[in-house]
Amino acid sequence: MRHILIIGAGRSATSLIRYLLDKSSSEDLFITIGDISEEHAQKFTKGHTNAKGIYFDVSDAKHRAAVIQQNDLIISMLPASLHMEAALDCLKYGKHLVTASYVSKEMQDIDAQVKERGLVFMNEIGVDPGIDHMSAMQVIDKIRDNGGKMLLFESFTGGLIAPESDDNLWHYKFTWNPRNVVIAGQGGAAEFIQEGTYKYIPYHRLFRRTEFLEIEGYGRFEAYANRNSLKYRSIYGLEDILTLYRGTMRHIGFSKAWNMFVQLGMTDDSYIIPDSENLSYRQFINLFLPYSPTDSVELKLRHNLKIDQDDLMWGKLEELDIFNAEKKIGIKDATPAQALQKILMDKWTLRPNDKDMIVMYHKFGYEIDGKKKQIDSSMVLIGEDQTYTAMAKTVGLPVAIAALKILNKEITTPGVQIPITKEVYAPILKELESFGIHFIEKHTAYMGYNPNNVAG
Amino acid sequence: MRHILIIGAGRSATSLIRYLLDKSSSEDLFITIGDISEEHAQKFTKGHTNAKGIYFDVSDAKHRAAVIQQNDLIISMLPASLHMEAALDCLKYGKHLVTASYVSKEMQDIDAQVKERGLVFMNEIGVDPGIDHMSAMQVIDKIRDNGGKMLLFESFTGGLIAPESDDNLWHYKFTWNPRNVVIAGQGGAAEFIQEGTYKYIPYHRLFRRTEFLEIEGYGRFEAYANRNSLKYRSIYGLEDILTLYRGTMRHIGFSKAWNMFVQLGMTDDSYIIPDSENLSYRQFINLFLPYSPTDSVELKLRHNLKIDQDDLMWGKLEELDIFNAEKKIGIKDATPAQALQKILMDKWTLRPNDKDMIVMYHKFGYEIDGKKKQIDSSMVLIGEDQTYTAMAKTVGLPVAIAALKILNKEITTPGVQIPITKEVYAPILKELESFGIHFIEKHTAYMGYNPNNVAG
Repeated sequence: MRHILIIGAGRSATSLIRYLLDKSSSEDLFITIGDISEEHAQKFTKGHTNAKGIYFDVSDAKHRAAVIQQNDLIISMLPASLHMEAALDCLKYGKHLVTASYVSKEMQDIDAQVKERGLVFMNEIGVDPGIDHMSAMQVIDKIRDNGGKMLLFESFTGGLIAPESDDNLWHYKFTWNPRNVVIAGQGGAAEFIQEGTYKYIPYHRLFRRTEFLEIEGYGRFEAYANRNSLKYRSIYGLEDILTLYRGTMRHIGFSKAWNMFVQLGMTDDSYIIPDSENLSYRQFINLFLPYSPTDSVELKLRHNLKIDQDDLMWGKLEELDIFNAEKKIGIKDATPAQALQKILMDKWTLRPNDKDMIVMYHKFGYEIDGKKKQIDSSMVLIGEDQTYTAMAKTVGLPVAIAALKILNKEITTPGVQIPITKEVYAPILKELESFGIHFIEKHTAYMGYNPNNVAG
Repeated sequence: MRHILIIGAGRSATSLIRYLLDKSSSEDLFITIGDISEEHAQKFTKGHTNAKGIYFDVSDAKHRAAVIQQNDLIISMLPASLHMEAALDCLKYGKHLVTASYVSKEMQDIDAQVKERGLVFMNEIGVDPGIDHMSAMQVIDKIRDNGGKMLLFESFTGGLIAPESDDNLWHYKFTWNPRNVVIAGQGGAAEFIQEGTYKYIPYHRLFRRTEFLEIEGYGRFEAYANRNSLKYRSIYGLEDILTLYRGTMRHIGFSKAWNMFVQLGMTDDSYIIPDSENLSYRQFINLFLPYSPTDSVELKLRHNLKIDQDDLMWGKLEELDIFNAEKKIGIKDATPAQALQKILMDKWTLRPNDKDMIVMYHKFGYEIDGKKKQIDSSMVLIGEDQTYTAMAKTVGLPVAIAALKILNKEITTPGVQIPITKEVYAPILKELESFGIHFIEKHTAYMGYNPNNVAG
């Protein structure tokens, strides 16, 4: 029997746990789920003979080492900053490790030792990062294997509300950490490269420089630029590529409306508002508008943002009830971003039957035999319910599949790594298809940025 | 004979040195000017029997202590971060200290020891901070002495080009550190209070929320908000004031045009542009505009910023030659802010005969005997030439006057302090008048934010 330890039984672990439990008999697995809440850990293991849930505090070095020693492979679903102590124990006791997080500097630093011990430390194998790496590299490798030269790579991912649950004017609900949505894009200009030219977009313009993407059967989406597209040049071996752009997908109209909050300064997370607890939503909005003894908050906002009488954006603001003078922020020492998050959570929290949706879209431009061509590849997954969400599936299933394939010695190359080699992505992408996670490819002439090639 | 040591003989020290040399015979002073450049230090002392210029490196502890011991009062004109070592020596050897810099935490921390030794450590006694403190506190004290209650305090300062030297469309030249102008307003939202309501302006809106100020004989100016107006509540004893706002003055139209650079992201100082050295001005601008194979940089910029065909702002851009495809940035590893500064310095550097101008404007709103009233107080000073600039005079003269009054025991209250007490500001403001630095007061009904009181 092979022993797997899953650390952290949060929302993103549901599909991961179900996959491994379902395989536990046929694959001869024993699953231990360790969580800071024992009840949480045991929720999934009740009635299973091949599984148990235990109290597990990753900062308790003695207990951590003891539990890790009893297992063959460790899956850490903790926040990225908490992986390292478990990783060092895995190295010490010769256990494989799988995480869905970005490779930290500390993690990269132990690569040589991990290799020496013949261990696989697989990271960035969730959805983004994860499925994006695998699905992109599969197409890029195919193009290059056929003798093609990559010209353009654009990649977009979005965690959205499913069409059947989309019932607000923003076409958005929080299907993941709300805080990350409110502060998305902050911390520096977005940087990318288009037709060989570097391009920079400051935060306050990010949500006004979107581009459109069409997915058959799901209509149009929009995307705004991620901060650091350029790091994918070296990761994907695209050093000479002319266009490299990564972005975040939203339903149409979201970004332009979100820009209202950005423009007013309501997404700022760097200072605390005095007496934020007792501020009404209306007073909160008024912090960002000029003082006037004669004009309403409404008119000041309309004038400040130049919102016409018949602009749809106005309805989006009203729907959030931001002009309400009774509702209180109710959070002590809140930053503007925290106060805004509170207002949004009133309206953007999922209802019991709501489903989420993950969308992904890649564009690959390339030249082969003197001809410029393009492949567009897209994936849509809708969640089952609020336990087995599309987010939990796309994050957890690649992790689970990778873990089993490492145990089964189908993935063997040792080292600290991410899923960009054929050994890793090919079998995982294949198995993901049976869970409904599949990419549809569309082959066209190169659309790139050549105006003569624009589709009719 | 009394001995004064001036550390740092930079551009802001000219008027300070001239004042003290002029008084050296009648007041029995010996002036030592210490600078990292001995030639620089001696430039001012040639032919003076009561002065000498010496090489002085503030980081050389032994020499620093030796020179400080030979003097009775030390004036530090070094950057604020370099004061503390000299300050600690002053404390040790019992010497008074005068600086034009903000009181740092370290400086404040030695207050008790400075008091114990009976020393005066006078700081923030330049122009801003300095003359602003003194001129504001004089009026505030007068209002309160008469039984008035302060309702509003707004204060604005600008370092500008004099009208006779104003020959570009921006009505601006660099009369001080260009870098500070390019990155002005960055680092967090501007915070102030209007009629009892907190107000916040994010950086990207700062230059579009200006207000106008009129100075008789000089016309209209505009002002944008400084970052931290609220710290003046406790400093000036205005804890209950309804309106508190500090800003920076510019000639009309500057801020709206400057906002173009802010919007595009060209003032960002947080990242380095690849191959910045070889980038043309035109290529630099294009970094911040969407890629297009068919459209010019000019049209993309017009469209991006919605600049009409007949908008005056366009001429301002053309005047800077920013669309030039030949001129190179020529700076290695430049940030956008550094590259922009280079472009601006081509056009905004003072010509040999250009003169600068300092403008200051305060508004004091108050209630007395049930009536609301207002005093507006303004000061304009034009520089003599490029040695005795308005900036050097307004920074250096208060420092020089304070130093002499401390030696003459007219200013005696010990401690780390700023010039907000009558003992300090009254005699200094009086003497500054003889140098043309005088405030003109205008008494009106309270204009504040009461629409019924708006002037016709």
